[in-house]
Amino acid sequence: MTGQAPRKSFGSDNHAGTHPDVLRAVVEANTGDATAYGADPWTERAIGELKRVSGAKGEAYLVLNGSGANVMGLGLLLGRHEAVICAETAHINTDECGAAERILGTKLLTVPSADGKITPELIAGRLAGRGDEHFAQPGVVAVTQSTEVGTCYSLAELRAIKEFCAANQLRVYLDGARLANAAAFIGCSVAEIASCADVLSFGATKNGAMGVEAVIVMHAADGANAKYLRKQHMQLSSKMRFLGAQFNALLADDLWLRNAGHANAMAARLADGLATIPEVEVVYPVQADAVFARLDPRHVASLQRDWMFHVWDESTSTVRWMTAFDTEESDVDEFLAAIAAVTGALSV
Amino acid sequence: MTGQAPRKSFGSDNHAGTHPDVLRAVVEANTGDATAYGADPWTERAIGELKRVSGAKGEAYLVLNGSGANVMGLGLLLGRHEAVICAETAHINTDECGAAERILGTKLLTVPSADGKITPELIAGRLAGRGDEHFAQPGVVAVTQSTEVGTCYSLAELRAIKEFCAANQLRVYLDGARLANAAAFIGCSVAEIASCADVLSFGATKNGAMGVEAVIVMHAADGANAKYLRKQHMQLSSKMRFLGAQFNALLADDLWLRNAGHANAMAARLADGLATIPEVEVVYPVQADAVFARLDPRHVASLQRDWMFHVWDESTSTVRWMTAFDTEESDVDEFLAAIAAVTGALSV
Amino acid sequence: MTGQAPRKSFGSDNHAGTHPDVLRAVVEANTGDATAYGADPWTERAIGELKRVSGAKGEAYLVLNGSGANVMGLGLLLGRHEAVICAETAHINTDECGAAERILGTKLLTVPSADGKITPELIAGRLAGRGDEHFAQPGVVAVTQSTEVGTCYSLAELRAIKEFCAANQLRVYLDGARLANAAAFIGCSVAEIASCADVLSFGATKNGAMGVEAVIVMHAADGANAKYLRKQHMQLSSKMRFLGAQFNALLADDLWLRNAGHANAMAARLADGLATIPEVEVVYPVQADAVFARLDPRHVASLQRDWMFHVWDESTSTVRWMTAFDTEESDVDEFLAAIAAVTGALSV
Amino acid sequence: MTGQAPRKSFGSDNHAGTHPDVLRAVVEANTGDATAYGADPWTERAIGELKRVSGAKGEAYLVLNGSGANVMGLGLLLGRHEAVICAETAHINTDECGAAERILGTKLLTVPSADGKITPELIAGRLAGRGDEHFAQPGVVAVTQSTEVGTCYSLAELRAIKEFCAANQLRVYLDGARLANAAAFIGCSVAEIASCADVLSFGATKNGAMGVEAVIVMHAADGANAKYLRKQHMQLSSKMRFLGAQFNALLADDLWLRNAGHANAMAARLADGLATIPEVEVVYPVQADAVFARLDPRHVASLQRDWMFHVWDESTSTVRWMTAFDTEESDVDEFLAAIAAVTGALSV
Repeated sequence: MTGQAPRKSFGSDNHAGTHPDVLRAVVEANTGDATAYGADPWTERAIGELKRVSGAKGEAYLVLNGSGANVMGLGLLLGRHEAVICAETAHINTDECGAAERILGTKLLTVPSADGKITPELIAGRLAGRGDEHFAQPGVVAVTQSTEVGTCYSLAELRAIKEFCAANQLRVYLDGARLANAAAFIGCSVAEIASCADVLSFGATKNGAMGVEAVIVMHAADGANAKYLRKQHMQLSSKMRFLGAQFNALLADDLWLRNAGHANAMAARLADGLATIPEVEVVYPVQADAVFARLDPRHVASLQRDWMFHVWDESTSTVRWMTAFDTEESDVDEFLAAIAAVTGALSV
Repeated sequence: MTGQAPRKSFGSDNHAGTHPDVLRAVVEANTGDATAYGADPWTERAIGELKRVSGAKGEAYLVLNGSGANVMGLGLLLGRHEAVICAETAHINTDECGAAERILGTKLLTVPSADGKITPELIAGRLAGRGDEHFAQPGVVAVTQSTEVGTCYSLAELRAIKEFCAANQLRVYLDGARLANAAAFIGCSVAEIASCADVLSFGATKNGAMGVEAVIVMHAADGANAKYLRKQHMQLSSKMRFLGAQFNALLADDLWLRNAGHANAMAARLADGLATIPEVEVVYPVQADAVFARLDPRHVASLQRDWMFHVWDESTSTVRWMTAFDTEESDVDEFLAAIAAVTGALSV
Repeated sequence: MTGQAPRKSFGSDNHAGTHPDVLRAVVEANTGDATAYGADPWTERAIGELKRVSGAKGEAYLVLNGSGANVMGLGLLLGRHEAVICAETAHINTDECGAAERILGTKLLTVPSADGKITPELIAGRLAGRGDEHFAQPGVVAVTQSTEVGTCYSLAELRAIKEFCAANQLRVYLDGARLANAAAFIGCSVAEIASCADVLSFGATKNGAMGVEAVIVMHAADGANAKYLRKQHMQLSSKMRFLGAQFNALLADDLWLRNAGHANAMAARLADGLATIPEVEVVYPVQADAVFARLDPRHVASLQRDWMFHVWDESTSTVRWMTAFDTEESDVDEFLAAIAAVTGALSV
Repeated sequence: MTGQAPRKSFGSDNHAGTHPDVLRAVVEANTGDATAYGADPWTERAIGELKRVSGAKGEAYLVLNGSGANVMGLGLLLGRHEAVICAETAHINTDECGAAERILGTKLLTVPSADGKITPELIAGRLAGRGDEHFAQPGVVAVTQSTEVGTCYSLAELRAIKEFCAANQLRVYLDGARLANAAAFIGCSVAEIASCADVLSFGATKNGAMGVEAVIVMHAADGANAKYLRKQHMQLSSKMRFLGAQFNALLADDLWLRNAGHANAMAARLADGLATIPEVEVVYPVQADAVFARLDPRHVASLQRDWMFHVWDESTSTVRWMTAFDTEESDVDEFLAAIAAVTGALSV
């Protein structure tokens, strides 16, 4: 489907535009000259705020998109020869066209995961062959918070992973493309989540930004070559102030948290409504801003005539419905009505 | 130097902000939902316009920055084992932290160049060893138009390169980060320049955009894996409409050409003024938006107290002064007065 | 365990030394000077023979080891952005330390396989997302003949894969580290197997060579950059005649086939003997030169005191017992007696 | 030219075969089974000897060829983002088809060198831009001992480089493909040379081996991922004992030193003879086993009818004449007579 949807899209949180406050900050940053590549006051303020909210002892780096953040973040932690342990459903494994392998030359050692989460037990199952040169050597565990299926690790789950990794000479990279949604769901600070990682990304684009993400290095020693990797990975923006301004708007007055909380609430509202529609089965706990549901393929087809969303798994007829910072209650209600109508009509 | 310069920066054309028309287009694109990753009307219009102005039979791809465009463009043309011939001064060789080597695994076979330009003769000098597996095998010639030292290839020069390359099984990549300035200087169309390349970039950021570049594939066959490389190279934007909107503004009513022509005129005005200051020697023909000048290091130091610009080559005390779409005549005149004062005062 | 085993090793077919005929050929090649890097009569004869037995229309390339052959072979067939479909048990996935990812930047899309073999159905299950830039794009299917678990594809099975791949724009790479064992088991020619691949390796080291493998390109067009990739992959030998001589000895009078047939027969003899030992369960059909067996971990430990072999899967107490060209019937019988003794003694 | 030369080749030290003692050691290692991948007594003895003669505190690793040694050695010292400073004439720059760029993704920052040697001054000239993310960041200096043009660094020269590098956060990789020739010329130990490097290769192939090189890690900390890189770089031999045996023969009774000393002496004898032939100009000091000479292209053509050697630089009609461990005095004298005849005849 091309172009502007006639109704609110439930296709992705990046179908939404830019939050008005973010856009205003971008416009206001367009004043006179500013030094390029980040030596400007907008970027410096954003970096300072990102370090403050995450508690990082290292630096924060603004980058251009989520794949850029993930590849750079993993690259900071991986030895030249090392592999990454991650869930089969991890974005780096399924949705980035093999960028980690292509750019870092690393191998992804995947583990099956029922709910998008990885556990110490699953990690342990991938450690056979350490020290044997014939086997890929895991050096980093990648977790996604919130996960690709809309679930959130509890802080206890994350801490258990961090502890296990620390005890097993593994580093933790946290893909935080939807970190805000997890913080909003858990009701914790970014710093509490960040303390369970060595390097993390903090996503802004899906949270109302126009297009910017951050890579946050928790320990200064891990960031020694970060700025060079950012440049080599083609993630250094020249007019960086326009990236910095976006983060400044989101981090002011916790706009990022309100955006995420609102999107989560809309997903929860959708899930609540679905509970009354027996033809639709919600397949993962609804914690962040996504609802995964199984319904008859004919119902899917009918709904897609008027509504934008993606089929997640054709083989099981599972769809993904996502909300965003700008999804309104009436959007959800209208969508629920359409689902009810379609499923009811067809099942008659 | 951090932040906003007290006076107009002559440091770089990316110290300037975003042209008001571009910013307006970005703001206006922020309307409701749009499908992500380029399936939106803004991007589709931009792609159509880029193909039209370049005469490309292949596709155009919006990317996030200049290094991204260069690496992707080279990657489309390079065999897995091949090397690139380029000028020693080429941006890909000197200013991208080795991104081409890191990301593509290619070798850059550099040639010395007096004025930033490469010639058939210089290329020919790098062809020894073809067919011998011990030698790096050149597959692509990279030219920059306008060059890193502010000069422009004439169409005749570009055509001679293209013809030589075609006769020698070499492909041509054209780094057009400042293509607009070259078109404005030569008084030719983008298509005339593009016809001398197999793949080219068309830079917008230095021309008044907020941050976007295009990779243009002249022959459809060269673009078969383009969209996958863009994704693997972390150059695919999710909210792509905001990139498309920028190009739409620049390509409307030839704003790109007017911006470039104005910047060029400001550089020419600066060069004209320098002709009356004997302590300053202009070292390259001033054709695009840059003036390279040699002056006493003490004069450089004095000037930098009040004015933002970069020393290009410390060993020869050569500086680079750049203009931009928003440099005003009064900025140039004020800067000239400052140069005159500093050089006169010190030489007394 | 270090060094020479007191008894015949059942650890690997590369625990064996060099076949006397191969060693003699190496010694005889040490006569005066010869041009380096393959322009010598030994290598030229080997290449000619390899092309003859495989029916290749392209060239054959001698390389230094099996990983080198696999990475080069895959590299010849893979587009810069493409991924490889292979069995989870594939050597390239489990035993090469991630070399394919590291050197080629490719992603391995693995499929579970009960018997080490891949099928059109399994391949088909990995084709979702073709044409979508977010998904890794499979370009090559890698099969191993004989497989890592000692089974052999029938010609019908291989042809079905080739046909499916041809119909689905996929190329076939065949890892033939133990191609000889498969040909001996099936009773077919190398050419019949090779005709099911686009590029294959033909292993000599496990077949009695000192250390050499061949990469065979079936269609000339696929080999255009082969010699450059061999050099870049550090697989070009300077005193190549000593590699060529090894292949010449193996290809003369079908020594390769006799060696493989003998090794297979010894594995079959071992399997036959095991049929009378109820405490040992053979877990895969014994077709090539390996027997995979499940037995009590305490029995494994006892046996390993005197006999060299590897545990394949600790979690299921599965071991791998391999024969070689120089395994004698008495070695097998002595080993069987030891197994019987150990399992009987402990189970009393 | 293909195949066996009718007369002693002066084309390369790897046109020679295998020294009889080395061949004998290979034959003698073919006794029964041995554990694969290096856990055998021949390899263990070779590693021990290599550590002893080099004084290494880290490990030594046997690899399959010179490019393999260079890429692995550089890879051990390079940060993921770093570049290498080397002479324009360095083998890694001119003769390995871009393997370092392809495999390591590194950039080679070359310096012009009159005699194949690099100096602290030349290195210093490549350090501009350190700390600036736009510039490639040198992390390693690569030196070749003896150099590609047959010259040898004195220990004082090497120590000056090491000291400069240590003071400038640079590591030293020493390409010792012809380390033996340098030790023989200087009259020093391997350890004295090795102490000036962080990692080095020790070449055996050009010194009379059949095909093996060593990578020696001077400080244990640099070798942490060495065995994994060797495997990923496809340099791990399965029947490693045949590599170990070669080194054992060369290191016994200083055969390596006698071989190198003899080859050097033959080059010196050739140079001495050339001094009496005015039509031939020797262009580099003759220190190792090579003579570079300039002579009339017609003389080159005449000589090449009967003698095997390479033209080094067509543009200056410079040829390279190499000796080997098995070059005899009579070979040199016969070659000199031919040169004299050809140049005299043609100059009459």
